[in-house]
Amino acid sequence: MTDRRELANAIRALSMDAVQQANSGHPGAPMGMADIAEVLWRDHLRHDPSDPNWPNRDRFVLSNGHGSMLLYSLLHLTGYDLGIDELKQFRQLHSRTPGHPEFGYAPGVETTTGPLGQGIANAVGMALAEQVLAAQFNQDGHAVVDHNTYVFAGDGCLMEGISHEVCSLAGTLGLGKLVMFYDDNGISIDGDVEGWFTDDTNKRFEAYNWQVIGPIDGHDAAAIDAAIVQAKAETGRPTLIRCKTKIGFGSPNKEGKESSHGAPLGADEIIATKAALGWKHGPFEVPANIYAAWDMREKGESLHGAWAESMADYRKAHLALSEELDRRLSGDLNVDIEVEAMAYARQLQNEAPKVATRKASQMALDHFGPMVPELLGGSADLAGSNLTIWKGSQSIAAGQSGGNYIHYGVREFGMAAMMNGIALHGGFVPYGGTFLIFMEYMRNAIRMAALMKQRAIHVLTHDSIGLGEDGPTHQPVEQIASLRGTPNCDLWRPADAVETAVAWGSAIAREDGPTCLALSRQGLPTLARRNVDDIAKGAYVLVDCEGEPDVILIATGSEVELAVAAAERTDARVRVVSMPCAEAFERQSMEYREAVLPSEVSARLAIEASHRDWWYKYVGLDGEIIGMDSFGESAPAGALYEHFGITVEAALDSIERLTEQFDE
Amino acid sequence: MTDRRELANAIRALSMDAVQQANSGHPGAPMGMADIAEVLWRDHLRHDPSDPNWPNRDRFVLSNGHGSMLLYSLLHLTGYDLGIDELKQFRQLHSRTPGHPEFGYAPGVETTTGPLGQGIANAVGMALAEQVLAAQFNQDGHAVVDHNTYVFAGDGCLMEGISHEVCSLAGTLGLGKLVMFYDDNGISIDGDVEGWFTDDTNKRFEAYNWQVIGPIDGHDAAAIDAAIVQAKAETGRPTLIRCKTKIGFGSPNKEGKESSHGAPLGADEIIATKAALGWKHGPFEVPANIYAAWDMREKGESLHGAWAESMADYRKAHLALSEELDRRLSGDLNVDIEVEAMAYARQLQNEAPKVATRKASQMALDHFGPMVPELLGGSADLAGSNLTIWKGSQSIAAGQSGGNYIHYGVREFGMAAMMNGIALHGGFVPYGGTFLIFMEYMRNAIRMAALMKQRAIHVLTHDSIGLGEDGPTHQPVEQIASLRGTPNCDLWRPADAVETAVAWGSAIAREDGPTCLALSRQGLPTLARRNVDDIAKGAYVLVDCEGEPDVILIATGSEVELAVAAAERTDARVRVVSMPCAEAFERQSMEYREAVLPSEVSARLAIEASHRDWWYKYVGLDGEIIGMDSFGESAPAGALYEHFGITVEAALDSIERLTEQFDE
Repeated sequence: MTDRRELANAIRALSMDAVQQANSGHPGAPMGMADIAEVLWRDHLRHDPSDPNWPNRDRFVLSNGHGSMLLYSLLHLTGYDLGIDELKQFRQLHSRTPGHPEFGYAPGVETTTGPLGQGIANAVGMALAEQVLAAQFNQDGHAVVDHNTYVFAGDGCLMEGISHEVCSLAGTLGLGKLVMFYDDNGISIDGDVEGWFTDDTNKRFEAYNWQVIGPIDGHDAAAIDAAIVQAKAETGRPTLIRCKTKIGFGSPNKEGKESSHGAPLGADEIIATKAALGWKHGPFEVPANIYAAWDMREKGESLHGAWAESMADYRKAHLALSEELDRRLSGDLNVDIEVEAMAYARQLQNEAPKVATRKASQMALDHFGPMVPELLGGSADLAGSNLTIWKGSQSIAAGQSGGNYIHYGVREFGMAAMMNGIALHGGFVPYGGTFLIFMEYMRNAIRMAALMKQRAIHVLTHDSIGLGEDGPTHQPVEQIASLRGTPNCDLWRPADAVETAVAWGSAIAREDGPTCLALSRQGLPTLARRNVDDIAKGAYVLVDCEGEPDVILIATGSEVELAVAAAERTDARVRVVSMPCAEAFERQSMEYREAVLPSEVSARLAIEASHRDWWYKYVGLDGEIIGMDSFGESAPAGALYEHFGITVEAALDSIERLTEQFDE
Repeated sequence: MTDRRELANAIRALSMDAVQQANSGHPGAPMGMADIAEVLWRDHLRHDPSDPNWPNRDRFVLSNGHGSMLLYSLLHLTGYDLGIDELKQFRQLHSRTPGHPEFGYAPGVETTTGPLGQGIANAVGMALAEQVLAAQFNQDGHAVVDHNTYVFAGDGCLMEGISHEVCSLAGTLGLGKLVMFYDDNGISIDGDVEGWFTDDTNKRFEAYNWQVIGPIDGHDAAAIDAAIVQAKAETGRPTLIRCKTKIGFGSPNKEGKESSHGAPLGADEIIATKAALGWKHGPFEVPANIYAAWDMREKGESLHGAWAESMADYRKAHLALSEELDRRLSGDLNVDIEVEAMAYARQLQNEAPKVATRKASQMALDHFGPMVPELLGGSADLAGSNLTIWKGSQSIAAGQSGGNYIHYGVREFGMAAMMNGIALHGGFVPYGGTFLIFMEYMRNAIRMAALMKQRAIHVLTHDSIGLGEDGPTHQPVEQIASLRGTPNCDLWRPADAVETAVAWGSAIAREDGPTCLALSRQGLPTLARRNVDDIAKGAYVLVDCEGEPDVILIATGSEVELAVAAAERTDARVRVVSMPCAEAFERQSMEYREAVLPSEVSARLAIEASHRDWWYKYVGLDGEIIGMDSFGESAPAGALYEHFGITVEAALDSIERLTEQFDE
């Protein structure tokens, strides 16, 4: 008979050994939270190590992601496909056990964590997704969507602002199946948190409408078990279990100290710790009886099997709904959205509306919304400005989970990180709105979506000085370049309603990464174009001349109109390229790219009411750029375009200079 | 006799009129908070409209900056140099009354606000600056630094995560002179906040160790006055005064509704509102008796004069200290720091240490710290990694305000926005550290420093894949380009200890904007160089060949070593340019820039372990770039450089290609 402490010590030993072998990593948190993890993962977590993608599994998020060895140890011990050799490769190139848990590497890792606080937000998103999906699909007697979301968080996570945003909203929305364990060890990297973190955390979370349990002894299995039972019994509010723990538990010289946080304990200290813990086994050695007690495969298959039976009953009683649920969980769309988008774009090309692209975005939602019921929308308190509410939008609120629109409140970062959790959960395609400038508040969550290859759609309106009077704090300058620089993030800046329709189609279709839609506040006419199909290629010839052009104008969004006007007024042979999505263009064949932007034409002018520097990529050192290199100002939009020299006249001057220069 | 309501109505009338005239803006908040503002600004705020820069004035921050007409009205009415014609120019180009309060435009605007939540953080920074400056300079019987900081905040500010970060820290630090008024009107842009914001805000702030007063009736002058008196009496904790108000107070059809928030009321509604308020005057008309009751110039001069007398007494008793205080408040340094930096750089060039530039940064702090007592350091819980603590660092804590180092906790955004408040307050040069990647959490506060032209120094360590095993969540890729794109922000990425010394000198000397220092985790050798002086120019020839180079290599930071090694191993005539600060380089004369990077040499190779795209600016379409265009991976640093092809071999291949290409 193995006692619980011994089972927990397996985590401690593996964590110490792996960090030591890698000569880098964080043993303190896994050692501190091992007892909590043992109770949760062996007695409560409903998961199936043989099928990490079982849709109704409980979700587990390690928000204090530096403690990755805790998670890897748990996955290994409970029977996931993560052998001891993988643990020995901790933090090495091409291993499945990177320094922080990375989604898509080890099976059972639900989300990438490490940037503190965001794991909590992912978990809130997952819990909300579960609640909404349940409301949409469960039927009397058929609770086929029914799981908990558990999250581990440390002092760092709770100091981060995002913890306020999402825990406040979780309380308001009454996410009763969300349970957070606070690793209250009183230590952060600088030392004893007493000098910088003295919140009454119980009171804080009570203020958010959470059930708060504890402080309990985070090394007392019975207390942990009782707390989890109590947490699960509360269905109307999220629960915080505050666990007093010792960081680096068991280490004679480093327990309770920041020195155990982020560096190997050292070979001698590991020997001393194992002795103190009564762990008699060599590095990476776990005896068979411990493995046996940890193995959750049989239990997991049984839980999974019972659920499969309940799904079979559901299928009998509600065939259409069950098929739709299967489809939703698969991530496949009902329609070929890119084909639909092209058809809609052609229709708009004929109708030729003159609308702001934010309005065109709403029109696209009205058009696509009924075809894509998995769209789960929202805005950070700018619904009326972002135009993210469409005709089929129904608000979600506490006790009203059956809708499809989330009022995130003024919580940009929380929104974006929750959207990642929603996407990771499955069953939804989240989209959320704010002003493009406030993308900065949530910048890192968009990056995390790109890193995790998650489909999250950001509706970023008021995309330039064209927003006008609100002034430089609200006017993007460098933000578009910043998003273009983010690997695996698509940025569309459509020029009119037609391009907006294609952008939305691309965003919804894109299964392996986020899309940002940069949309205008101001109205833009539908541009004449011979070829709607090529929009999807990210850049295309909108206006062309006879023969080889003297100058190629490249523009995006609201400035395409200006480029077209300049082309109409000049005598030079000018081609206008609209480039709504540079990333999509860069995925095209060399031949296509060369056809649009022939290398032999160096006389190029880029026009975009955004930071100039990014455009050297397309115009090189021989071309010209009309754009921004300072902050904006507060004034009506028209006055600002004049003031900053983003005008047809400036374009004509550039064309003249370029024509002369390349004539020589 | 004018009653208080009538005085407050002057704000309401001016706000309605200005927004209507601009045909854009936010009347709701000024109308809702007018009564609070009247009591605070007429009876409590210690300020001198004739001298907005009086160092000991109370600070006032309008965190809900969209309510800018509240502040402009107050400045106008109390006698600041802001005439009625300026109010009529609200939100117009070149006016002093932009859409949001912009620091440096209207006198009396203490900080630029608009991006929600950051005003609170600025105010916390100001209150902390006052407390630390007082501890450093006040003497028994001479409280020459002694003022309050008041901040207005709305629901939006309190939903934002940054409000958690800084209010938690303000409570921990016991900032007793900080008083926040919460405009608890129950409305945000999406409507009644009941659906998305249901915090028990009293309880939340009690959890932060704040005194909480209210809810009080925010339209009851006596209640407001009593609350302020109580707030001022509490010296050990910050105070939150929760004021129940009606947004758009007085508007018969829009009071209490989101429709009054962000759009003109309309001509008819203004007439109806003025009638309901009993305000009988035309647009922009304020009767003389109202102006007289609002005029604070005489009272302000009297307060200011009394302080000047106390300063005179202080000067008599503590001459040296008083002179130092004068100097500190002036913003002038004790030394010519750039000269000092150059001397120190020459010394390091001789000593040639091999250290990580984060370590070199700490050495620079050790060197410059004693010369620059206004340095007020800190880190977001990464002191030991950022190496921001130097020999003279003393931690600041509750009751220990006399130090010079702030443990910000894991609160990056809060830190950066507090630093802005500290810089705006005066008396300090703030610096703060975190990992470069977590710059993203505080991105917008760095932008605000750049916009406000504030001297704030960001120590951003672990600046590339060179950080190694922590993996892609911790490895910057696009962050350096993002900072380079921020107008008025200097980004230094020094290659060794010598360049780090110059970078620190430049950062401390730079009075009109923030500086970011991107520093390596890994050790870097001191490079041989003939010319230390040119480092300050941002880019310079580090290694040169005879005659015109075949190829110019441009590199920064940890990759300069690699460029030098490639130059040594190739037969081609190669110049190596180190470019630690592109912004400084771009401020140099055309002649200097041409001498370093002659236009006729198109064969250029940029090497930087950062996003490639930014470098087209310097290598154009003919050159090559060795850099990143994907996320990093978790592995030891050396393995990552190999994996991503940032190697001497890759540089040699590029040099060969470029030489051949331009030979043709």
